[in-house]
Amino acid sequence: MNQLRVGGGRVLRPDGRVERADVAVDRDEGTIRAVGSPDEVDEAVGAAAETLDASDSLVIPGLVNAHTHVAMTLLRGYADDKPLDPWLREDIWPAEAELTPDDVEAGAELGAVEMIRSGTTAFADMYFAMDRVADVVDRAGLRARLGHGVVTVGKDDADARADVEESLAVARELDGAADGRIRTAFMPHSLTTVGEEYLREGVSEAREAGIPVHLHANETEDEVDPIVDERGERPIAYAAEIDALGPDDFFAHGVHVDGSEIDRLAEAGTAVVHCPASNMKLASGMAPVQRLREAGVTVALGTDGAASNNDLDVFDEMRDAAMLGKLAADDASAVPAEAVVEMATRGGADALNLPGGRIEAGAAADLAVVDLDAPHLTPDHDPVSHLAYAARGSDVRHTVCDGDVLMRDREVLTLDAEAVQKRAADAAIDLVERVKSA
Amino acid sequence: MNQLRVGGGRVLRPDGRVERADVAVDRDEGTIRAVGSPDEVDEAVGAAAETLDASDSLVIPGLVNAHTHVAMTLLRGYADDKPLDPWLREDIWPAEAELTPDDVEAGAELGAVEMIRSGTTAFADMYFAMDRVADVVDRAGLRARLGHGVVTVGKDDADARADVEESLAVARELDGAADGRIRTAFMPHSLTTVGEEYLREGVSEAREAGIPVHLHANETEDEVDPIVDERGERPIAYAAEIDALGPDDFFAHGVHVDGSEIDRLAEAGTAVVHCPASNMKLASGMAPVQRLREAGVTVALGTDGAASNNDLDVFDEMRDAAMLGKLAADDASAVPAEAVVEMATRGGADALNLPGGRIEAGAAADLAVVDLDAPHLTPDHDPVSHLAYAARGSDVRHTVCDGDVLMRDREVLTLDAEAVQKRAADAAIDLVERVKSA
Repeated sequence: MNQLRVGGGRVLRPDGRVERADVAVDRDEGTIRAVGSPDEVDEAVGAAAETLDASDSLVIPGLVNAHTHVAMTLLRGYADDKPLDPWLREDIWPAEAELTPDDVEAGAELGAVEMIRSGTTAFADMYFAMDRVADVVDRAGLRARLGHGVVTVGKDDADARADVEESLAVARELDGAADGRIRTAFMPHSLTTVGEEYLREGVSEAREAGIPVHLHANETEDEVDPIVDERGERPIAYAAEIDALGPDDFFAHGVHVDGSEIDRLAEAGTAVVHCPASNMKLASGMAPVQRLREAGVTVALGTDGAASNNDLDVFDEMRDAAMLGKLAADDASAVPAEAVVEMATRGGADALNLPGGRIEAGAAADLAVVDLDAPHLTPDHDPVSHLAYAARGSDVRHTVCDGDVLMRDREVLTLDAEAVQKRAADAAIDLVERVKSA
Repeated sequence: MNQLRVGGGRVLRPDGRVERADVAVDRDEGTIRAVGSPDEVDEAVGAAAETLDASDSLVIPGLVNAHTHVAMTLLRGYADDKPLDPWLREDIWPAEAELTPDDVEAGAELGAVEMIRSGTTAFADMYFAMDRVADVVDRAGLRARLGHGVVTVGKDDADARADVEESLAVARELDGAADGRIRTAFMPHSLTTVGEEYLREGVSEAREAGIPVHLHANETEDEVDPIVDERGERPIAYAAEIDALGPDDFFAHGVHVDGSEIDRLAEAGTAVVHCPASNMKLASGMAPVQRLREAGVTVALGTDGAASNNDLDVFDEMRDAAMLGKLAADDASAVPAEAVVEMATRGGADALNLPGGRIEAGAAADLAVVDLDAPHLTPDHDPVSHLAYAARGSDVRHTVCDGDVLMRDREVLTLDAEAVQKRAADAAIDLVERVKSA
């Protein structure tokens, strides 16, 4: 048997306890065989199993970045500090119009390296040229739920239908790729950028094929008001009406949701992916995370694209979520450390309906080993507090997904990080040239 | 002559431009002699001068942490996620009551290591046992403005007076220590925790001695309402009335300031130290940073104590300030990247009235070299954006203060980082034991 021991450290258990334990991983199955004392783990994997050193470290579930546009790493720092509308029209959309499939691959590789280096093992991605993103996920060894983003506003009927069909086709074709690590979703961009008939048709086909739905919902007031004005109902009610509010669906943002919408999300079992950094950077507002959680909504965390963040480090999202959640609730006890850690791990896996998110026997072997032996993580009063408030992606030593070691001692093993970085840097230079001359 | 070259990198100039340049440092004088081409710098320092490699890196002014309680690193993660009042009464104050001067020294050492490792070269500290903090500043090679924090509520007249006298005595005695790198201030804790007569007396004596004033102002509504209720005027007006609103004074927080107070701060030339992480974590509110800056107020950044942050990394504060500033202004173009970089460098040095904050000939040689050769800082569209949004303390390679190299290639040279970390960890364990048995 092909076994791995993650040994010598402490482990964050699903109930929130932190305890001294080793972790036995069955690499062939990609699962955790046992969590226990060194002796118990010896019994599970044999004393000769390869070991990942976790001394002075905390073993946590691999982090889940439940909403991003990973190829946008090419636009990191390309345009900041502008209101949403001119930022999109003057900067982001013109740049995206020039993005080639090769660029998408280069950006996705860069994002994959960045995520592996910061302990993320699974992500949800909405973009285009998704076959290239899928190829990167496969080679990187990550897990993902992928989808082609649909926009129909400004398109004629044929183009609009083609875009819907593309998203459904991508979802059908890529589902189960990368040895099952890739799952898919139908991804209309939002309820205001896709026309009702296309939404209805696409969702209906997705339901027949058993494909979940992912979209941006209630991110800004401009995404809410037109729906209220035109339909006399709020966006989450509209989503329900078109059958896009299912238990396997997950909506990004959920900033401007009212009490009735929170209740509907909870009843439907539809998850919300909170993107605190993006919501602050674009001045979108403060999602009512504490209320969503109290109502029983599954809340995950997402970085959104690197252009509105500007990194893909879920540690930042945990800190931001805890801090913004307190401000939104006007209560310093809201959205505590253990909540954001849960959102970044189990909450993310549950929202995306992917394996992982738990360090326990039988669970997927998706984990990160966080080095706590650092001045900024001293003293050792509470390692869960450190995860939320003081640790950062650069504190991750090892990253494991599906039983495979993606990073060991900060060296990414599945991709050539240096070459990836160079390729992305060059692609970005070329892209800017093309945008300028377009 | 004892010279240093910081060579091979780009430099962030005071006007915000980033250009390829070397930096010549006169170590004896502690100043920057020249900023220019390699040839120009050869002429200034000689080709044989010791070199700090800045290739693929950005040379920036040393960051300024303009409001902290550095010894509180011992309480990092000790108690989180509680409302301010019970957090202080049940957790922080009982722990602080057990802190010995040795603990303060241990915590200050840990904070100094953390700040050096994240590119901070100067800080303002309000705490007690300040002679021990000063000793740490001296050994660490940092710059600081230090003061003993005064609280008179709940004290009898003799104790209250003794506390005021202690703060004045500390300010007189420590001013100019550490070869002039230490300056001081009279530091009443706040306008509500120090009685009016003690404030008046202390400020009056400070003015005579030419000592500036640092206090917490308008942090929460609970710091505003009692003053309005009792005096019929807002806190900044009260500060002016007791002569505590001078051009060398700097106030922490300034969250709940109205338009009239912003104007008064601007007229008086009193600086505000914005502490975005602490203001979020304690749910204190959103400071109107864009309005303060537009009114001409000098705004600096501070981490506040590690118990309400939970780190001393000014890169986090820059990111938080940009993001929270946009949310507060409801405008994604507010508090842009260049503004937060300015606040963390020149703004901090100006608020604290300390040398530094500028990479230019004649300025103090206080600088940090930030490694930009990393996946999360790729591509290279805009290094100033990266400083604000994507870089973190761990990207700092070298830290220089007053011409001395405090960290080279991530190795802290002035303190034994490993021993400091061990001492702080042990001190924290002892502290918890004492609090439990108290």
